[in-house]
Amino acid sequence: MKLKIFTTGGTIDKIYFDKKSQYEVGDPQAGSVLERANVVLDFEVESILRQDSLDMTAEDRRLILKAVESCPEKHIIITHGTDTMIDTATGLGKIAGKTIVLTGSMYPARFHESDAVFNLGCAVIAAQTLPPGVHIAINGRIFDPKHSRKNVEMNRFEDLDA
Amino acid sequence: MKLKIFTTGGTIDKIYFDKKSQYEVGDPQAGSVLERANVVLDFEVESILRQDSLDMTAEDRRLILKAVESCPEKHIIITHGTDTMIDTATGLGKIAGKTIVLTGSMYPARFHESDAVFNLGCAVIAAQTLPPGVHIAINGRIFDPKHSRKNVEMNRFEDLDA
Amino acid sequence: MKLKIFTTGGTIDKIYFDKKSQYEVGDPQAGSVLERANVVLDFEVESILRQDSLDMTAEDRRLILKAVESCPEKHIIITHGTDTMIDTATGLGKIAGKTIVLTGSMYPARFHESDAVFNLGCAVIAAQTLPPGVHIAINGRIFDPKHSRKNVEMNRFEDLDA
Amino acid sequence: MKLKIFTTGGTIDKIYFDKKSQYEVGDPQAGSVLERANVVLDFEVESILRQDSLDMTAEDRRLILKAVESCPEKHIIITHGTDTMIDTATGLGKIAGKTIVLTGSMYPARFHESDAVFNLGCAVIAAQTLPPGVHIAINGRIFDPKHSRKNVEMNRFEDLDA
Repeated sequence: MKLKIFTTGGTIDKIYFDKKSQYEVGDPQAGSVLERANVVLDFEVESILRQDSLDMTAEDRRLILKAVESCPEKHIIITHGTDTMIDTATGLGKIAGKTIVLTGSMYPARFHESDAVFNLGCAVIAAQTLPPGVHIAINGRIFDPKHSRKNVEMNRFEDLDA
Repeated sequence: MKLKIFTTGGTIDKIYFDKKSQYEVGDPQAGSVLERANVVLDFEVESILRQDSLDMTAEDRRLILKAVESCPEKHIIITHGTDTMIDTATGLGKIAGKTIVLTGSMYPARFHESDAVFNLGCAVIAAQTLPPGVHIAINGRIFDPKHSRKNVEMNRFEDLDA
Repeated sequence: MKLKIFTTGGTIDKIYFDKKSQYEVGDPQAGSVLERANVVLDFEVESILRQDSLDMTAEDRRLILKAVESCPEKHIIITHGTDTMIDTATGLGKIAGKTIVLTGSMYPARFHESDAVFNLGCAVIAAQTLPPGVHIAINGRIFDPKHSRKNVEMNRFEDLDA
Repeated sequence: MKLKIFTTGGTIDKIYFDKKSQYEVGDPQAGSVLERANVVLDFEVESILRQDSLDMTAEDRRLILKAVESCPEKHIIITHGTDTMIDTATGLGKIAGKTIVLTGSMYPARFHESDAVFNLGCAVIAAQTLPPGVHIAINGRIFDPKHSRKNVEMNRFEDLDA
């Protein structure tokens, strides 16, 4: 089994630039997180985009869809901003025969107290144990993108019927 | 679903005591790791032991077995030292109807570059997605305790036939 | 000797709010940094402002001046955004008989790889060892606010004649 | 001004080896701490020893003395285990015309909540602002090795007459 990780930007990869007094999406963090955790899986990281998910366009989503469809791997993680993660997940629903897990974080991976490393651990196991389909791994749970939303006020995901 | 987490000590909980110039098992880290990751599951942490796993006795293992058997929860994580994790896992094999996931870390959770947070993310998803039985979540994979070992030299787990 | 620490905001105290997809000035970090370093000095932290230093007004600077002038302590640290730290320092030049040290950081204290903790260590010793006057402690050096500037491009302070 | 940093081991450089279930002195941390803090001083790090300070011998101290005496720099930091830091400092008392600052930490630099980075900030300023002589920078203060001791029970330094 080979795990493919696509990175698209989002808070998980954000860095603070004092020069501009603002954050920006920086280098993808997923690869170094997996290396520090001494993951023994065969995995490969590929950066597709460096977008804040609020800025993601239909064209960006076509790019992600094409990358996931055309790669030979059956077990896929996508790191993504949380604000429009469900939109991207929904667009990937047509892909058959692949376990696709989207994850991200509410705090940049470079923060002391980020949820990024934990969420990547969740995603790595989800990508190996869940059936084909599109899943979201965040807040210690697996969410079905068709039946969940980000609760922006509470800064966490929840089931639609919650 | 309610997740029960038993802590037993091991490297994951180690703290350095300058006064004695040595590491010792400190307060269990699992609860605060899950809180920082903003886990929305219902979970409960219970400390059973504070042992380096090399010092774990048959009596210690009976204590763990009893705790796991008698708790009402069906989804269980045990944080444990890695050196004898497989011994403890083997002893739990007789318990039916519960998904039991052992995890731990090669570096203390209090280290900057520890595998502890990632491994707990792995274990939290494994405890929810795997079938009943005893599993080990470490190095980004799920290991079957009957067919794996810790490679002490390489400081990682591997399949017995590897 | 008692050390007084005034906090005014700046990058050192910034936190990331995923909800708004931006950084904002959060709780002052200086006190908890000194506690974690097990500082045995008598010190007191007082929050005056929570400003990004680019947004600091003349009225804000009058507030800082008044606080530093009127406090009984002779050894003072001010944590401050780096962009206009020299402006604030210049305005404090008229205060006699007090050692005033301004510090801050280029990365938020909550980042893994921040300069905040190091800079606070620098400032704590500078406030005890330097003569009365206004000093800036950053980048491992003491700068005289009358003869230095922030090199925004290089993201560090330098002497005016550099 | 050029700053010379000699590293000799001690808790500041300790790393945990799961393979042996114990800590050991690892690579010197001072250089990377100063780099992360974006220090603009001219500085050079040289590793003399990798000793737990409880294991330091008379021969080890002769080595340190010789290195400090013979180097051309006038501003010197020595990172050192805290347990016998005062013994080493006392032996350096005969060196004239150099500002020598010893520092170390109660927790390894690799810990999230270590005092190492803060103490190095303290030492870097102390080495530039203090008069020639031997000084200890720890717990946010400057201690005179002739009139101080480590309070092992409290895990901090104090004045002899405290």
